[in-house]
Amino acid sequence: MRIARFSIDGNVAFGVVEGDASTEGGPVLDIIKGHPFAEFERSGQKIPLSKVRLLPPVLPNKVVAIGRNYAEHAAELGNEVPDAPVAFFKPSTAVIGPGDPIAYPSFSSEVHHEAELAVVIGRMCREVPRERVKDVILGYTCANDITARDVQEREKQWARAKGFDTSCPLGPWVETELDPSDLGIMCTVNGQQRQLGRTSDMVRSIEDLIVHITEAMTLLPGDVVLTGTPAGVGPLNVGDEVAVTIEGIGTLTNKVIKRG
Amino acid sequence: MRIARFSIDGNVAFGVVEGDASTEGGPVLDIIKGHPFAEFERSGQKIPLSKVRLLPPVLPNKVVAIGRNYAEHAAELGNEVPDAPVAFFKPSTAVIGPGDPIAYPSFSSEVHHEAELAVVIGRMCREVPRERVKDVILGYTCANDITARDVQEREKQWARAKGFDTSCPLGPWVETELDPSDLGIMCTVNGQQRQLGRTSDMVRSIEDLIVHITEAMTLLPGDVVLTGTPAGVGPLNVGDEVAVTIEGIGTLTNKVIKRG
Repeated sequence: MRIARFSIDGNVAFGVVEGDASTEGGPVLDIIKGHPFAEFERSGQKIPLSKVRLLPPVLPNKVVAIGRNYAEHAAELGNEVPDAPVAFFKPSTAVIGPGDPIAYPSFSSEVHHEAELAVVIGRMCREVPRERVKDVILGYTCANDITARDVQEREKQWARAKGFDTSCPLGPWVETELDPSDLGIMCTVNGQQRQLGRTSDMVRSIEDLIVHITEAMTLLPGDVVLTGTPAGVGPLNVGDEVAVTIEGIGTLTNKVIKRG
Repeated sequence: MRIARFSIDGNVAFGVVEGDASTEGGPVLDIIKGHPFAEFERSGQKIPLSKVRLLPPVLPNKVVAIGRNYAEHAAELGNEVPDAPVAFFKPSTAVIGPGDPIAYPSFSSEVHHEAELAVVIGRMCREVPRERVKDVILGYTCANDITARDVQEREKQWARAKGFDTSCPLGPWVETELDPSDLGIMCTVNGQQRQLGRTSDMVRSIEDLIVHITEAMTLLPGDVVLTGTPAGVGPLNVGDEVAVTIEGIGTLTNKVIKRG
């Protein structure tokens, strides 16, 4: 099931996506009664997807991201695969939704795309045992871990390089029924392929990452775990359109604008 | 003015602290009507401070902390003062209030105290010019940037080392009328002095730090900026009582317990 968060006429709601581009009349949203993190029902009231504005599918309290989790990507930046996962935060103020602009930050001149599979946490949890990890996951979406590469190299900790406003596009929706272990993941810029990989090439599995993170900290419903990016990262310029596509989920597209 | 957040009989409220330990009958809280981040009035309804449970004085969306901002502290850990401020995040799930226990994390065997002046942000802001920094500050409180030093040395990014649950004690209240430029800051463990410094020894001023942070990201009302710790950091053990005292603010005390 695909759960989207959207606004229409100023109201915000969740809906289940039915159909796709091949469906006659296009996909529709069946509006949810209740909240997707609890028990909910489909209302049967349907709106064409084309009539709404999709929003970030969740409002995370925090995003915990993992660096260097694909060996080829670590190598392309001259890094070794680390002994322990490299965990860092992206703040809630960095999150934007599908179609929202990425504002090129004033303090960088080298901003990169990083296509990633995002895990959406469904329930409050800590010290999650490996065999219970699947129980704390609501589903999966696409993410772009937008990175000011020059700032990342200059500043020892990555709060500014990876935490600036608009540096965390998420969407287009949360897919709740999906085996994430071997999915194609692609990033295009202006339609040209830049990154191509498979989630099966992750150094550490989703189970490993969630055990590692929750050993230290509580995750809340709506929190997001980013699982690392495959090889092929590269620069974005003002005017570019960047798209992250993950097999079985969909495509997250954002345009880069000059920060206003 | 000192604004405390507290609970009594299950209700959460803000109040203005009147008097201190030398006041006959002890200090009282004048309950606030409205919210301290907006216009508010004192209700005139007063409760003895001794009757309430103080809570974290704000619920930050994020805590942005600065490393190595006192030269003597950078030197004691063998680090140089960096060219740019070292900014990192502590998540909201790390925040605890005065009197709340610090739970010793399972994945560390060297947990340190770091007494810090905390700046409480009063309004949503980004790209704050130096001369407007004072306008975005609600006030100041005490913080303890609890750090798993062994994990910090082992893991390249500090999300786990400085972001684990209970690693961000804040309190006891927000002091809104204070010149923060030259305050004594002290940390004791079981009554013995460990850290002693003055905020005038910061490498970068509060103005510098807020300009630097908001160049990249939006700060929200209630967000907190930690300004670095003076020399004298050292280990905490289960059973220890750690207290951060800042001149003109007060004392934040927490006990270290075994994580349950």
